[in-house]
Amino acid sequence: MSVTDEYLANNAEFAKTFSGPLPLPPSRHVAVVACMDARLDVYRILGLDDGEAHVIRNAGGVITDDEIRSLAISQRLLGTTEIILIHHTDCGMLTFTDDEFKREIQNEIGQKPNWAAESFTDLDEDVRQSLNRIRNSPFITKTSSLRGFVFDVATGKLNEVAA
Amino acid sequence: MSVTDEYLANNAEFAKTFSGPLPLPPSRHVAVVACMDARLDVYRILGLDDGEAHVIRNAGGVITDDEIRSLAISQRLLGTTEIILIHHTDCGMLTFTDDEFKREIQNEIGQKPNWAAESFTDLDEDVRQSLNRIRNSPFITKTSSLRGFVFDVATGKLNEVAA
Repeated sequence: MSVTDEYLANNAEFAKTFSGPLPLPPSRHVAVVACMDARLDVYRILGLDDGEAHVIRNAGGVITDDEIRSLAISQRLLGTTEIILIHHTDCGMLTFTDDEFKREIQNEIGQKPNWAAESFTDLDEDVRQSLNRIRNSPFITKTSSLRGFVFDVATGKLNEVAA
Repeated sequence: MSVTDEYLANNAEFAKTFSGPLPLPPSRHVAVVACMDARLDVYRILGLDDGEAHVIRNAGGVITDDEIRSLAISQRLLGTTEIILIHHTDCGMLTFTDDEFKREIQNEIGQKPNWAAESFTDLDEDVRQSLNRIRNSPFITKTSSLRGFVFDVATGKLNEVAA
């Protein structure tokens, strides 16, 4: 049995006590962008209830065209205005460089990705980088609040990064 | 007080009973790609515990270069091998077309996004599209299981899409 099968069994149990559906637009008008890290249960960390906020996640919690796409849809079609960015301590993105990551892929399969891996060396600096990419995007026009944080995987606390 | 401030107050409570840190690599070797929808609490829907699985999310749960980037990092650096894709009923991506979305942006700010909005008209078809984008990527080479689902926001159930 795969882990996927185990999770499907969990879902069958979950559905027994599920009550829905809730409305489509996020009720608290918030979009969160966070790292995909397995220790970042965004709903628990922020105390989100079902239906309150969009949650966008990728390797690093960085801002690329796809996060701009998601945020533009979130704001323009579904009415979110606050954005919360979350990076975290002990992040995998601190453990390699783009050059070595792409070289290993090229060595293995004979083709180098034409995208940046988005590794970084300083958490606070990369949070500021992500904040700036949102501020500088012409497509994100409805923002009432934009703040960036580093989640401490040892303490469970969000620490704000000065803009 | 912004909603962000409320969530920070929630986080202060959360941290009081937090126990960490857990290891960086996902302990169950799973990566989930799901829509950003506010009603998809992926940890609860699948019964994920902290530290078990990467969770990647965007508008639609579609596969673009950024999800390939995240999955490549997940597999190559952090040892995941199973991939679970999750779209859902009542998705916002079913409610517009790329052409009209981009036209509205162009009308408002005088500039059209150079990326696809990735709207779709059929949930099952788009799950298969996402599965194919992963299968056809040369950068995703460590997959032992790849399955796609539609989460029913009325019942809480995951329904598998035939490949």
